[in-house]
Amino acid sequence: MSETAETAAYGHSDAAGALAPGRLMSAEVAEQPAAWRRLLDDGAGEIADVAAAIAARAPRFVLLAARGTSDHAALYAKYLVEVQRGLPAGLASPSSLTVYGSRPQLRDVLFVAVSQSGGSPDLLDSMTTARACGAITVAVTNNPSSALGQAAEFSVDVRAGVERAVAATKTYTAELLALYLLLAVPDAEGRTALTRARAGLADAADLTLAGEPAVRAAAARYRFADRLVTTARGYSYPTAREAALKLMETSYLSAQAFSGADLLHGPMAMIDADLPVIAVKTPGRGGAAMAAVIERMRERRADLVVVGEQPGDGQPAIVLPVQTAGVSEDLHPLLEILPLQQLALHLALQRGGDPDAPRGLSKVTETW
Amino acid sequence: MSETAETAAYGHSDAAGALAPGRLMSAEVAEQPAAWRRLLDDGAGEIADVAAAIAARAPRFVLLAARGTSDHAALYAKYLVEVQRGLPAGLASPSSLTVYGSRPQLRDVLFVAVSQSGGSPDLLDSMTTARACGAITVAVTNNPSSALGQAAEFSVDVRAGVERAVAATKTYTAELLALYLLLAVPDAEGRTALTRARAGLADAADLTLAGEPAVRAAAARYRFADRLVTTARGYSYPTAREAALKLMETSYLSAQAFSGADLLHGPMAMIDADLPVIAVKTPGRGGAAMAAVIERMRERRADLVVVGEQPGDGQPAIVLPVQTAGVSEDLHPLLEILPLQQLALHLALQRGGDPDAPRGLSKVTETW
Repeated sequence: MSETAETAAYGHSDAAGALAPGRLMSAEVAEQPAAWRRLLDDGAGEIADVAAAIAARAPRFVLLAARGTSDHAALYAKYLVEVQRGLPAGLASPSSLTVYGSRPQLRDVLFVAVSQSGGSPDLLDSMTTARACGAITVAVTNNPSSALGQAAEFSVDVRAGVERAVAATKTYTAELLALYLLLAVPDAEGRTALTRARAGLADAADLTLAGEPAVRAAAARYRFADRLVTTARGYSYPTAREAALKLMETSYLSAQAFSGADLLHGPMAMIDADLPVIAVKTPGRGGAAMAAVIERMRERRADLVVVGEQPGDGQPAIVLPVQTAGVSEDLHPLLEILPLQQLALHLALQRGGDPDAPRGLSKVTETW
Repeated sequence: MSETAETAAYGHSDAAGALAPGRLMSAEVAEQPAAWRRLLDDGAGEIADVAAAIAARAPRFVLLAARGTSDHAALYAKYLVEVQRGLPAGLASPSSLTVYGSRPQLRDVLFVAVSQSGGSPDLLDSMTTARACGAITVAVTNNPSSALGQAAEFSVDVRAGVERAVAATKTYTAELLALYLLLAVPDAEGRTALTRARAGLADAADLTLAGEPAVRAAAARYRFADRLVTTARGYSYPTAREAALKLMETSYLSAQAFSGADLLHGPMAMIDADLPVIAVKTPGRGGAAMAAVIERMRERRADLVVVGEQPGDGQPAIVLPVQTAGVSEDLHPLLEILPLQQLALHLALQRGGDPDAPRGLSKVTETW
């Protein structure tokens, strides 16, 4: 869908009066499989060209820069780079460049900034500095004509269409998919990233989104919770981080995300029957590594909900199913976040809030 | 103090019967200036030798690996590397190596693992892999004879003496200081890291620790809080992270740390008069960048306590003072954490807990 067409569609609703609470976010959550199909059909060629141009420059280190939701997409990219490209990678600390004015040596460094709007001044500043310091620069945005998109040597358009809800949903998964197409490598069977992403991903998303009634029921469980923990490992850790942020920004919960391994250091002390835990566990190596974490949480009598599959320890658990049949593990994060976006939406609605207009937030955040 | 001497001193208390709650943690918090003086006197030469050996190899990227409290020391090291060395740096995701078995290209990469015990199996695994993949490897631990210390090409002893409280305090600041001596560069006036660290740092710590009565009084404020936010920017961001972990592990609060910039993206929505916020603001560029964050929190009527100095906006604030006169900004994190360790201790005691024996935790955490 072009941005114009989408604005017009929403504009009609606006003209008819105030939107029902959560309507924008609900529509954008539902739109995700279509947005991915569009990116796979229309955007893959452009991304392949950027990937080839980068490969010709043979970067040896990857820096990722982002804020908020896009920071979780950047974290996903970090796993892709480390696991599949075998390159060391880091999340840039923008304040090193902006607050302290460092001018690092960035020859052979691939610098990837991820931003929905491309409008964050500190990211633009970081991008400009990184390019001046010799980095190969790429902007991954939903607005390639933004200042950030223009400042980078290479620009990738995630083609999610205009996002109007303050809580980012479709731009998050579109960023994940664009980063996947840019950074993932052929698997052991020789299937390219594009081939893997076209193999049933969007269909699995449709099936997963259809589980919304169960998610709505689960949301009632947290009606009066004021804190919550999310946890996952490996590729799925960004899912735990993004789920916590969605719950914070729409429902004002104190939601904390931990990698399963970090949870065992210190934070495990606060886990008890009164602190809800949402664990992400889908089939694969990251999910398998969660088994020991779930065992420890059972010992501490945690209130557990599993997103993905049954935990497999023979004990009962509430599961928000994620359909992953036929989908490569490294693409699971696109699917895992879907029921969690729905959970954030329905919890906000059940609390009488409007997830489209969270208090204290606006769509573009200016940090410096 | 040698590990043997210290064990003997504590052993006496053990022999006399059960320790009073928090006695170990209290003693170890108080011991920090002495531990730093010991490291500056006895350990600086060894660290200078390691630094020189690394410099001769001219690393171009730095990867830092750690878990729990030590991860916050690693984050501090990341700022030092980025701001002062001008090198790109990243925090390693151990699961890329351990769960997914990646074998990255680490030529010209400095790999620094930070661990109090040197006993975490996943860090050892990461270290072994990093060394096999060509990295220059350094272990920064409180136990150089540990498996991690032995697996690294270079080993740095933080000389904090045996730490017996489960909540790490003196090993955290000793790690900060050792990393500072290893990684910081001469300042604009040509003063080396060692000269700067010897210029009043330990004396400032003594003065700051003497503020304990005010901290004990402030702890009463959070007697019934079950969630809390900490925030800071730049070099001080690790302080916010470590303070949140200390509060979680000793008082079972849901304590969340945000960089001041990230807080404006999404999490700001959950800030209101019922959510306590602890902001770290000491003189310098990081503290100056917090002014805008504090302004936004005032607008949201946040319950604010400032660690460091008066926020300077003319509005009243509860301040837990940090004495920083004559101490370089890049060393403030060693001082800022002191009242926050005391806060975690006193809050746990006021809640009837024992910060020396948090539920569900043991001193060495085995993750894989």
